[in-house]
Amino acid sequence: MINEFHKDYLVVAKNASGRSMQVPVYRFIGKQHGPVVYIQSSIHGAEVQGNVVIYHLIQLLKSLPIRGEIILVPNCNPVGTNIKAGEYTLGRFDPVNGTNWNRGYFYDRDAVLKFARTVGAEESIQSIKQRFRAHLLQGLQRRMSNDWGLGLANQLNLKLQLVAANADIVLDLHNGPVSSRHLYVPEYAEAAATHFNIPHIIYIPNTFAGALDEATFCPWWTLSESLSKKHQRQFDFGVEAFTVEMGSQEVVNFSEGEEDAQGILSYLNSRNVLIDAHVTPKKMPRYATELANYKTLFTQMGGIVEYCAKPGTPVKQGDCLAKVLNVDELENERAVELISAPCDLIPILHFPSASVLSGTQLYKCFTEYRQVT
Amino acid sequence: MINEFHKDYLVVAKNASGRSMQVPVYRFIGKQHGPVVYIQSSIHGAEVQGNVVIYHLIQLLKSLPIRGEIILVPNCNPVGTNIKAGEYTLGRFDPVNGTNWNRGYFYDRDAVLKFARTVGAEESIQSIKQRFRAHLLQGLQRRMSNDWGLGLANQLNLKLQLVAANADIVLDLHNGPVSSRHLYVPEYAEAAATHFNIPHIIYIPNTFAGALDEATFCPWWTLSESLSKKHQRQFDFGVEAFTVEMGSQEVVNFSEGEEDAQGILSYLNSRNVLIDAHVTPKKMPRYATELANYKTLFTQMGGIVEYCAKPGTPVKQGDCLAKVLNVDELENERAVELISAPCDLIPILHFPSASVLSGTQLYKCFTEYRQVT
Amino acid sequence: MINEFHKDYLVVAKNASGRSMQVPVYRFIGKQHGPVVYIQSSIHGAEVQGNVVIYHLIQLLKSLPIRGEIILVPNCNPVGTNIKAGEYTLGRFDPVNGTNWNRGYFYDRDAVLKFARTVGAEESIQSIKQRFRAHLLQGLQRRMSNDWGLGLANQLNLKLQLVAANADIVLDLHNGPVSSRHLYVPEYAEAAATHFNIPHIIYIPNTFAGALDEATFCPWWTLSESLSKKHQRQFDFGVEAFTVEMGSQEVVNFSEGEEDAQGILSYLNSRNVLIDAHVTPKKMPRYATELANYKTLFTQMGGIVEYCAKPGTPVKQGDCLAKVLNVDELENERAVELISAPCDLIPILHFPSASVLSGTQLYKCFTEYRQVT
Amino acid sequence: MINEFHKDYLVVAKNASGRSMQVPVYRFIGKQHGPVVYIQSSIHGAEVQGNVVIYHLIQLLKSLPIRGEIILVPNCNPVGTNIKAGEYTLGRFDPVNGTNWNRGYFYDRDAVLKFARTVGAEESIQSIKQRFRAHLLQGLQRRMSNDWGLGLANQLNLKLQLVAANADIVLDLHNGPVSSRHLYVPEYAEAAATHFNIPHIIYIPNTFAGALDEATFCPWWTLSESLSKKHQRQFDFGVEAFTVEMGSQEVVNFSEGEEDAQGILSYLNSRNVLIDAHVTPKKMPRYATELANYKTLFTQMGGIVEYCAKPGTPVKQGDCLAKVLNVDELENERAVELISAPCDLIPILHFPSASVLSGTQLYKCFTEYRQVT
Repeated sequence: MINEFHKDYLVVAKNASGRSMQVPVYRFIGKQHGPVVYIQSSIHGAEVQGNVVIYHLIQLLKSLPIRGEIILVPNCNPVGTNIKAGEYTLGRFDPVNGTNWNRGYFYDRDAVLKFARTVGAEESIQSIKQRFRAHLLQGLQRRMSNDWGLGLANQLNLKLQLVAANADIVLDLHNGPVSSRHLYVPEYAEAAATHFNIPHIIYIPNTFAGALDEATFCPWWTLSESLSKKHQRQFDFGVEAFTVEMGSQEVVNFSEGEEDAQGILSYLNSRNVLIDAHVTPKKMPRYATELANYKTLFTQMGGIVEYCAKPGTPVKQGDCLAKVLNVDELENERAVELISAPCDLIPILHFPSASVLSGTQLYKCFTEYRQVT
Repeated sequence: MINEFHKDYLVVAKNASGRSMQVPVYRFIGKQHGPVVYIQSSIHGAEVQGNVVIYHLIQLLKSLPIRGEIILVPNCNPVGTNIKAGEYTLGRFDPVNGTNWNRGYFYDRDAVLKFARTVGAEESIQSIKQRFRAHLLQGLQRRMSNDWGLGLANQLNLKLQLVAANADIVLDLHNGPVSSRHLYVPEYAEAAATHFNIPHIIYIPNTFAGALDEATFCPWWTLSESLSKKHQRQFDFGVEAFTVEMGSQEVVNFSEGEEDAQGILSYLNSRNVLIDAHVTPKKMPRYATELANYKTLFTQMGGIVEYCAKPGTPVKQGDCLAKVLNVDELENERAVELISAPCDLIPILHFPSASVLSGTQLYKCFTEYRQVT
Repeated sequence: MINEFHKDYLVVAKNASGRSMQVPVYRFIGKQHGPVVYIQSSIHGAEVQGNVVIYHLIQLLKSLPIRGEIILVPNCNPVGTNIKAGEYTLGRFDPVNGTNWNRGYFYDRDAVLKFARTVGAEESIQSIKQRFRAHLLQGLQRRMSNDWGLGLANQLNLKLQLVAANADIVLDLHNGPVSSRHLYVPEYAEAAATHFNIPHIIYIPNTFAGALDEATFCPWWTLSESLSKKHQRQFDFGVEAFTVEMGSQEVVNFSEGEEDAQGILSYLNSRNVLIDAHVTPKKMPRYATELANYKTLFTQMGGIVEYCAKPGTPVKQGDCLAKVLNVDELENERAVELISAPCDLIPILHFPSASVLSGTQLYKCFTEYRQVT
Repeated sequence: MINEFHKDYLVVAKNASGRSMQVPVYRFIGKQHGPVVYIQSSIHGAEVQGNVVIYHLIQLLKSLPIRGEIILVPNCNPVGTNIKAGEYTLGRFDPVNGTNWNRGYFYDRDAVLKFARTVGAEESIQSIKQRFRAHLLQGLQRRMSNDWGLGLANQLNLKLQLVAANADIVLDLHNGPVSSRHLYVPEYAEAAATHFNIPHIIYIPNTFAGALDEATFCPWWTLSESLSKKHQRQFDFGVEAFTVEMGSQEVVNFSEGEEDAQGILSYLNSRNVLIDAHVTPKKMPRYATELANYKTLFTQMGGIVEYCAKPGTPVKQGDCLAKVLNVDELENERAVELISAPCDLIPILHFPSASVLSGTQLYKCFTEYRQVT
């Protein structure tokens, strides 16, 4: 065999029948040393394309020798995947209490700063990395052992994070509602963005809002910054994490999934995970913006909406983004209201239903974007 | 003004805040005598394209003289339209008890047969029609006045039916999940089907299952059959009703809506509703089958599904309809299961989500279909 | 061991993760011949007290010798049990399509009448019973083997019915919303009702509406009537089925569950299932009415409701059943509307939420009831 | 008239039919000067008892002369009240995105600190108060006027806050799931707690988590602390805000509502709002704890639960709080698992459903509590 292969199951919750709910964990272990890669999909239950991407990765990794280890956890939220509400999957949040399934990972900034103080001037990167990883895992375990217990989403997140925390590279595969492919990249790893085959890139700061990518890179970034300041030199631990949005939720497409898998291999190849592989990023226009310029357009009206702007296609200020039909005024000039772009923008995703209340997230848009190469 | 125009509101329910929920009722009254036409949309809350169609009909009727009267009731279910469950609209059934919003109309076959016995050999069609309509309205009103009350969906349906029962022509505008345009036609009105611009036609028998089209035509069809048998001649009352499926739910498209409106005008023109209009049906292939041959394919597996067959495009027996991904078996030959067509068929609609439990309605298909002209 | 004991699992569905969903099947087999008893609970996912009743039955049957066999299937709907919508369980219907989980059992009246014609004057009850049961099972199996598949609720129901169809006695354990204990009894088994410790009894006719009790007794009742008419004598096959409503949904109570279990044993003892047991029905007032007199009171208003009448306690015509608060009229005389009893009645259950739309099932009530002994 | 009375409506949202959703605003204005009181109920749609309390307050205020003004906003979330999911009301969060309806109020700490720097040593309390209130209202208005719009819950919250920000006393009426009456009190207003007739009191710190009470008191508390530190004397602005939990959700009780209203009047009387009223707090045991000691017990198991401890009744360490039935193990010793109290505690509320997944909030409990007088 080219790589060692294992399949295990991880119990992440118990359902109301008292039964264990588990996720499959696929592992490929290379014959050479190298980074540990962790890839999960479908923490939001309706965002399923990542499962197809992992399927293709598994097929490809059967004949592709690797360095280090690749851990693949498809369908990582067996609760969320199975909550139907009408014909669709109510996969973004716990139906009991509204908790977003992607906001309960763990990060303790103070603990990182405290750890930083234990690092002496001479300690090697490798030693720091090893000690810090153990420290992170202890923090996670302490968080999980709690007399009073933890909430469901929190438990699920921490059990996955306990696996992911061993990795140098973490990819969390998501989908938008009706969405173009886009990528969240920590600012410090900006250069990595063009190794994926993803046309739209969002740079995010060193701020924790509960997601897995942040929970992964915030500790290392914070540690690195703290040590750099203290010791007046660069500390690069080589830990990167990305949220990859693989198009629209509620649909899967096997042939697109194969391309998505190639894009991930291209990035992994740039990180030295593949041995003698000739996978390079596609030539394509890529656009990027900062998180602060990735804006949500909320509707002020309620009504029936046609989405006139297509995700991924730039729109000029004042152009029509959406038409809202007002069923009470069909015979007069208030029948159709136009919603136009407040500035030049690229719509990245839009709401997936034609019926909206006021205050609905109609579009999320790149503003102040630029092309990157 | 070319036609008289009125707008009213009809209260159909009260919400939990104690407030009235109403539907707009638009009416165009022609200067010449003619049939009464009733068109409603969105009894299923997520099926919203019909509202856009009614919007276009209203624009067109501003400059199109008519005979008789056209009553337009868009967004006829203000409860269903406003039930969001996640980002989508849970519009097909009452979230309290699962009652389909389109199954609570009223039809009393015995009352029709009893009425038939009151018709003498010499009574004119017009007189029978007038007496029978009064009889139907009384039946409805009796049904609605009930010491113990009525269920919400039932009340909504009956309040709409009380308006529709005055019409000679009733169109109920729906959408399928992910769907091609199709049309339910009572067998006795088979000839009417080709006047619409709808490529797929389902002939339905004189059987009542609770929907508005059935509740409209079953009494007249039954009366006609009963009298024909008794008096040995044809009784044609000119009452027709159709359920028109205007593509997919959860999306609206204004330009398609204008074409949909033209198709309805084409049918109305064939029924002599328009004065001097040159609206004729589009030349297009049309396919038809009987309701008994309009089959539902349920999946035996649960999993993540790619829908490989496109609504409206014929599929040969054995061809792939769908692929199901099994996340627990990604490394072996059970990773992807194919679901193939049990016979030659046209898929008309498919389930709108990629995540399915066993027993999900994957596709509804025309089998044993034929081309009609 | 006093009775033989087995535990198995029956797969009834697959979830969206592609995994089997199963129900536990507990069996006690006595050393003496006797009837087969089938008891299931929680086909409606929020109606969970029956699971506690089965728990107590299992404890009691460890030391109680039986004749025949008792099959216990708790938590028989693993899909419905696990659908949370907010903090409660959306257990009455499939969230995808609104299908009531208790309406997809199978009964083919024509097949029964056809079978009846195969019974000769001399055939013994036992032979008829054996042939008819085989005939029923074949019908079920034919129904389940279908190229196009079956809906989820239908599949679940038929898989359970395939087990239940072997039984002579079938109990389906339910709960009402906020409810007194009550019992559905087929009219022909009226005498059985007083062997349970249930104060409120509804006699139901030989009509099939899709539930398990009906699916169980309708074939035997129809066969019996058909043969009795033909051969001018009584045919008693000893097959009985009941829906037992064990109080309110969304609560369990272990000590009440033990009493409930005693009541079931009392009935089973009357059917000769227990050996030398001294379990007799409790002395208590019991009230009964016909299904046609078991009436639903729907509210005409929407608003916030206090339920003033307590399930199980008789109410006089005109007495207050409920108060509805109208939040828009708090300062005037329309602030509170009283809903009063349209006739003398016993409220059996009421809606479990204080917020209601118009057309909500406020109460279900016994009218025209009488005491039985 | 004893007090001036007005009723208005405030539009807070538009629904998917394009219609305005409004809340009633009742106002009593006294003939004497005095504080402005703002009381709202049902921001969480299933928590409806507060509406009955406001009903009773309105009845009582018809004959009770007041100082200042009392503004009453019942049913303040017309969206949340009307979201049914099954028979219950899914009232805690927006069904589209899981946003808690009570977390979108506005507070800008930096703006408060900046304002504090504008206050000179001689400025009177009244002048500061007037300037600061204007400053707060401007901040709110700036927040609401946003080219890109705001989310639904956020809009609703801010529209209500714009009214509440004028008040000196703010009461936000809630309910727990199955709950004893309890009260959130800002630590600085500790003394106010015993003027209500509420047995359980939680002291909360000057921390903002998005709720109305916090959004109300945090700015004044922060201002007061900042000025006190700077000017070395006390600044008491007399602004207080409380979240009052009026028992269990999904039920209303008119006679308890009258008592609840008396308790609120007792508090208002202590704040000099009532003229010559003899309303005093009830003599009753009251228990208090800090927010940090108000603990949530999550279950580690999934299953069917009996809640053995009653909200409001103290429980000793090790005593049984709940029993969990495991339907797969009914015949053995794992059939029932006991969950016991990790320490001495008072259970204040418990989950309202008997079916729980792992990670469910089973109980919220007072620990380290003390009696207060």
